[in-house]
Amino acid sequence: MAEPPAAPDLVRELVRDALQSSPPYLLPHPHGITTKLDANELPFSLPPDLSAELARELAAVELNRYPDPDQLELRAEIAAPLGLAPEAIVLGNGSDEIIQLLVCCFARVRPGRARAAVAYPVPTFAVFRGAALAAGCEPVEIALEEDFTLDFERVDRALTEARPNLVFFARPNNPTGTLWPSRQVAELARAHPDVLVVSDEAYSAFAGDGMIAMAAELPNLMIMQTLSKTGLAALRIGYLHAAPALLAEVEKVRLPYNVGALNQRAALWILRRCRSLLAERCAAVVRERDRLAAALSAMDGLRVFDSQANLILFRVGQAGDGRATAAWQAMCRRGVLVRLFDRPGPLAGCMRVTIGSAEENDRFLAALGDALRG
Amino acid sequence: MAEPPAAPDLVRELVRDALQSSPPYLLPHPHGITTKLDANELPFSLPPDLSAELARELAAVELNRYPDPDQLELRAEIAAPLGLAPEAIVLGNGSDEIIQLLVCCFARVRPGRARAAVAYPVPTFAVFRGAALAAGCEPVEIALEEDFTLDFERVDRALTEARPNLVFFARPNNPTGTLWPSRQVAELARAHPDVLVVSDEAYSAFAGDGMIAMAAELPNLMIMQTLSKTGLAALRIGYLHAAPALLAEVEKVRLPYNVGALNQRAALWILRRCRSLLAERCAAVVRERDRLAAALSAMDGLRVFDSQANLILFRVGQAGDGRATAAWQAMCRRGVLVRLFDRPGPLAGCMRVTIGSAEENDRFLAALGDALRG
Repeated sequence: MAEPPAAPDLVRELVRDALQSSPPYLLPHPHGITTKLDANELPFSLPPDLSAELARELAAVELNRYPDPDQLELRAEIAAPLGLAPEAIVLGNGSDEIIQLLVCCFARVRPGRARAAVAYPVPTFAVFRGAALAAGCEPVEIALEEDFTLDFERVDRALTEARPNLVFFARPNNPTGTLWPSRQVAELARAHPDVLVVSDEAYSAFAGDGMIAMAAELPNLMIMQTLSKTGLAALRIGYLHAAPALLAEVEKVRLPYNVGALNQRAALWILRRCRSLLAERCAAVVRERDRLAAALSAMDGLRVFDSQANLILFRVGQAGDGRATAAWQAMCRRGVLVRLFDRPGPLAGCMRVTIGSAEENDRFLAALGDALRG
Repeated sequence: MAEPPAAPDLVRELVRDALQSSPPYLLPHPHGITTKLDANELPFSLPPDLSAELARELAAVELNRYPDPDQLELRAEIAAPLGLAPEAIVLGNGSDEIIQLLVCCFARVRPGRARAAVAYPVPTFAVFRGAALAAGCEPVEIALEEDFTLDFERVDRALTEARPNLVFFARPNNPTGTLWPSRQVAELARAHPDVLVVSDEAYSAFAGDGMIAMAAELPNLMIMQTLSKTGLAALRIGYLHAAPALLAEVEKVRLPYNVGALNQRAALWILRRCRSLLAERCAAVVRERDRLAAALSAMDGLRVFDSQANLILFRVGQAGDGRATAAWQAMCRRGVLVRLFDRPGPLAGCMRVTIGSAEENDRFLAALGDALRG
């Protein structure tokens, strides 16, 4: 009988090559943060009276029973305002899981290729790359312009040359906030009928130009949205709309109990009870975004990028000059946390601030102003 | 510009072949069920006073914030009684997700093979096959003996011939209840150091012979357990223990927010507050299992299989004689739901009853007795 190899040898032997060379996804957790504007969360929690009512609702959930695998009540509540039938959407454990499901379902090796390919413009949301690598697919990364707009001719060429099965467009894009026009995405879908085109509309509550209404005309268009950015990030409810034949395949891969019972019940109760409150709060965030963009644009030496999401990306320094990192550290010492992009590349020298409450935004502006002067 | 193909053509073009030929996972939902013994759930929910206390705890969760991606508090609470450090386990959105993660991380194509292979004895838990197919792997199914025990020489040969990267052993097995001995599983792990051996101990609360203590000696052994069968199925908390180098790879594929904030908080509160209550209830289920096994064995014409889980598998009829289906329908009309296996194969003519409360088990026995006489 052979001696068992040590664990690191096992990893070399067994783990997919792409994973072995990937670093884990780590974010800094500085201490003493009082103004948390790093994760694109809505700044408002439920008012205490509603939290108490919701808690009584949750007390009725039988924790010993599996969640509803069909999720039809919650699907109906989400689908109705979109003009869709409950069966026209599939729920995920957040949009993250839906991205995984789509890659798992639809990325396949084309004749003449060694690996399945998944495309997306960069810089963008990290899970597109992560899901592609985890599934053993080749990531096809299409560079954005210097101002983070999208050159659709370049996308068209990339789809023709790399022949991916799937292309993801985050609309608006994270971390840049840019909204690439639906008209051009739809044109690409028409021009490449053998590529599944995904419009990831996680930030749709803060933007227009969603593509759900176009899906009926474009059988290779899929639309993802989520409740996370509208104040329910804790619950992990993402959803997908696409042609029934495509959703049927996703349903085969979706684990039946992927959305827990407390999550389903809480989301259902909140959507029935507080939908207008959530919408008012998203509208308040949009107003604050415009105020914050104006204030940032008035600051010396910043480059502020247009955003249609609940975030603003701005450039503080240049690659290698250390200004962004120094300013970020100074802001952390003041208790204000934003997301720093300190690596070389198109985001070098940039920070991303989530739109908070008016008070949080004021604290952020004051801390940033001091940091830039300091 | 080409005309877009219709959706069914797209499915043929894009969807993995293995998925296209898989039927979706559907279970019957008869009406009027008052005794639900079909899903291996614990029959007891939390007492009302504890539910109310838990609800107040959950009211404090900020729903607008993402869940803790590190999950260290809950990992510590689960790991400590197992004699493990918090970092020695990884949490999943139920064991289901952990199975997906393991296949995604570790199934890879061996030299000379067309596809990665994943092995498991059959009949067993359906997600092993589902996760393998979804990841494009070849399922290597190893037949159990007629009494659902495992011929380890047959497993040894299958591992040598098919060269899978991963082999799953559900210990005890679902739906049969059989507990395959840890000693023999450990021997296989030693004999096949380049195969990852997974002991899926979802039903460990009702059985002995768990393998966590053996992982330190066997770097290719991984152990899965879950809170689902101990009364917390609603929360979707599964966990994995393995060598640190293997867990580090799983962490790269795990989505950071895979366990929602309500699920984390509820599980943490219940484990801290009611762990002994859960344990007493599992012990009560074990006593009821023994009583139920004796009562079933005393019935004419049933074959009852040994079980170490919170379920009992028994054979009512033979393939094609329709007796099991007729009895199952008669029981449904009495409001008693168990799981029927009506397809040809090793489970033909079998039913699986989840161990319920004493009253539920009495109702089941009465309904089954009437159905067999009727």
